[in-house]
Amino acid sequence: MPTIFTKIVNREIPAHIVAEDDEFLAFLDIRPLVRGHTLVIPKKEIDYLWDVDDALLGRMMVFAKKVAKALKWSIDCKRVGIGASGFEIPHVHLHLMPINTTNEMAVNNTPLTLSKEEMEEIAKFTKNTYSQLFEYVVELS
Amino acid sequence: MPTIFTKIVNREIPAHIVAEDDEFLAFLDIRPLVRGHTLVIPKKEIDYLWDVDDALLGRMMVFAKKVAKALKWSIDCKRVGIGASGFEIPHVHLHLMPINTTNEMAVNNTPLTLSKEEMEEIAKFTKNTYSQLFEYVVELS
Repeated sequence: MPTIFTKIVNREIPAHIVAEDDEFLAFLDIRPLVRGHTLVIPKKEIDYLWDVDDALLGRMMVFAKKVAKALKWSIDCKRVGIGASGFEIPHVHLHLMPINTTNEMAVNNTPLTLSKEEMEEIAKFTKNTYSQLFEYVVELS
Repeated sequence: MPTIFTKIVNREIPAHIVAEDDEFLAFLDIRPLVRGHTLVIPKKEIDYLWDVDDALLGRMMVFAKKVAKALKWSIDCKRVGIGASGFEIPHVHLHLMPINTTNEMAVNNTPLTLSKEEMEEIAKFTKNTYSQLFEYVVELS
């Protein structure tokens, strides 16, 4: 059985995707603790963070760094925090959270209620920022 | 002014150190949310996680992975979670937390009260495990 995240990778279920490369995907958490709360996953199904091999783990953090920079430019926040506990879904996921205080990322906080339109707007804006920062291509006319 | 973490690196103030290499240090958090709550820092003073250059960031995660494995072998837990918010001390620090549930790593939980002896015991045991897993050297007699 593929995980729910693999289904998102395969576009079998929808998600608010903000960044993607060959190995990783970033999309908005549907239970956001803060605006722009994003999950970064490896496309490869690995249950536990510390079972990710060294090279892939390093590349995942570099991908997460790019997403964090796009979030910092897109969301009004002081910093972008990171967290991962490893429970619930057996597919590695790093939480990236644009925050102004440490307590905003407390895992037992009540998720925000954002409309589908708000989520789409956040995703679109962050995706555009990511694209401009890291994927800008000069097209020859 | 050096940060408090640089002072720990330089052994100017004490800490319960569990692992060290040329670039990184791991020591117990003095306000542990769980037994074995550990901080991983780069020895280089960098304020914000996402300003760490790509190569060093990758190596830091690989170092953190080794510490997480030592913690998993040393502390009764299901997983070792990770978190970083970036406030309080302007020197990058990743929190590693041996946990059995996600809520155990909520940043607004009340820290445990552990005696100096308990902290020393946790650090010693984890340090020994780390050493056995990653630093075992056959000495020629």
